[in-house]
Amino acid sequence: MVQMTTFAGGRTGSWQVEHIRAVIGPPLEMVKRLAVAKGKDSSNQNAVWRLRGVTSYERYVHRSEREQLVARQPELGRVEATHAALIPIKKSAAWWNLTQDERREIFEEQSHHIATGLQYLPAVARRLYHSRDLGEPFDFLTWFEYAPADASAFEDLVQRLRRTPEWKFVERELDIRLSKRE
Amino acid sequence: MVQMTTFAGGRTGSWQVEHIRAVIGPPLEMVKRLAVAKGKDSSNQNAVWRLRGVTSYERYVHRSEREQLVARQPELGRVEATHAALIPIKKSAAWWNLTQDERREIFEEQSHHIATGLQYLPAVARRLYHSRDLGEPFDFLTWFEYAPADASAFEDLVQRLRRTPEWKFVERELDIRLSKRE
Repeated sequence: MVQMTTFAGGRTGSWQVEHIRAVIGPPLEMVKRLAVAKGKDSSNQNAVWRLRGVTSYERYVHRSEREQLVARQPELGRVEATHAALIPIKKSAAWWNLTQDERREIFEEQSHHIATGLQYLPAVARRLYHSRDLGEPFDFLTWFEYAPADASAFEDLVQRLRRTPEWKFVERELDIRLSKRE
Repeated sequence: MVQMTTFAGGRTGSWQVEHIRAVIGPPLEMVKRLAVAKGKDSSNQNAVWRLRGVTSYERYVHRSEREQLVARQPELGRVEATHAALIPIKKSAAWWNLTQDERREIFEEQSHHIATGLQYLPAVARRLYHSRDLGEPFDFLTWFEYAPADASAFEDLVQRLRRTPEWKFVERELDIRLSKRE
């Protein structure tokens, strides 16, 4: 079942925006709050920007990897996970022109994207939203949740991924850090 | 580059609808004409139904297969290709719950979807539109164009695909046949 989610940056929402960093490419306007809503939510009239994606089927994960992920990955919404990150990514035309076997080879056999993520489970909860087919400015939005005690582990995870061969195909990346409002 | 296309069934459009057959699942209302337009076209006020999809990256094709396809596949819009078919397909939850390696195994190693299609090139031109992430009623829309002399070859192609293990996961399929208006 495909489910759309809208991330709206503005003055309302249950997440406080700590910072928005342009890792690669142009920045996005800083806002105070982030609201996460199901569906193509346009009700938030004060939103400064909106990013949308859908939870869809997995494009690279193999059966053996799925089983490890399912065994270890936590649910979203854990009480202790008061830190979050929203990382929108757009990959280059060169990436999308690769064939499936070539993309998988770079993604996992060269970059160990799944294997690396597994090392940070169950500390870091993760959900991937696909945006490319929607005509959105980014191809993916990845949402992460973690406890304050796991903040340095999360930092380590994103730094490791950014040093991989896969990241040579990233042409735009934002890093939006969030915390739960008291 | 993701490009949306809208297929609108109604009283206008450059393709005459010969028949609409419900191969699996519920039917779709018969119409006289089909209009094919770029973008999320809602201008056709008399449309009885609209189906939308995007040309996106390939999900299963490997490099060696891509090279054979590119070498043999014709462009759309050949003057002699006065016959066309639009085949909307929705696959089951069981299909989408498979992992990438499992879907590829059924799609090609068991069902020879790519290899079979190659045998009908360059007679049958083909373009795949992805609809699933758009929240559309179908997951894919496949568009085919062929000359009258190749009509029986096309029939053979679709019959062969419908007998494959992949088709056990098809829960809805329409077969819309079209011809160019004189």
